Amino acid sequence: MQALGRHILLELYQCNIETLNEPARIESILIEATKASGATIVSHDFHAFNPYGVSGVIIIAESHVTIHTWPEYGYAAVDIFTCGESIDPWVIQDKIASDLGSESTSTMEMKRGLFKMPQGESIHHKPLQGAIESI
Amino acid sequence: MQALGRHILLELYQCNIETLNEPARIESILIEATKASGATIVSHDFHAFNPYGVSGVIIIAESHVTIHTWPEYGYAAVDIFTCGESIDPWVIQDKIASDLGSESTSTMEMKRGLFKMPQGESIHHKPLQGAIESI
Repeated sequence: MQALGRHILLELYQCNIETLNEPARIESILIEATKASGATIVSHDFHAFNPYGVSGVIIIAESHVTIHTWPEYGYAAVDIFTCGESIDPWVIQDKIASDLGSESTSTMEMKRGLFKMPQGESIHHKPLQGAIESI
Repeated sequence: MQALGRHILLELYQCNIETLNEPARIESILIEATKASGATIVSHDFHAFNPYGVSGVIIIAESHVTIHTWPEYGYAAVDIFTCGESIDPWVIQDKIASDLGSESTSTMEMKRGLFKMPQGESIHHKPLQGAIESI
């Protein structure tokens, strides 16, 4: 079986609580981590909640990176979904976990879009440099 | 152990290929499915890729709904991440799977943000009706 995508589910416990509630800092951490992996950022969208917490998403040509923070629990849920073979999602995970100061991390990698290919044939990854249109 | 969030990973195979490549239709399907669950939509952002495929995300007050489509494989990867107890993520999953005409579906539900609470104490879900600020 071959997979179209890799999806890392990242549970970050015991993070720096102040950082978890700083929307601009969270946005910057995610963008820098994503750039460090070589992924192509298509758009990003972050929101702060009242009384606390941040939700944000970065759409990348290779799929997405999302975060939701619960400062009251010192916890952040991060998802890193990539396709293709040109970028390493673990670069993103390492940088986010470190920048949020997580002292207890749990990670799982899921394969997404599994297909049985004919012998000797590889799954076709979409060209990532193609034009991208906003809808 | 109690969980802050529920995350449904939805693998939709054998979808309607034309639908998978219609960005506006994909956006409308996800928004309608999300509304049907009673979730509060904060923002949505969809993109079409050249030569084919759509990526989209809806940030909801309760977390997020995302989709990536590979029309060339008849496949879509959908994630439904919710927190709180007021909405049912399975409403979203049923409607998206049906509207994309998927004839082979695989689903997994993950608990996100697990905490051991003192006896008799429930995990505190953030008030969902609080003000939301764009960053």
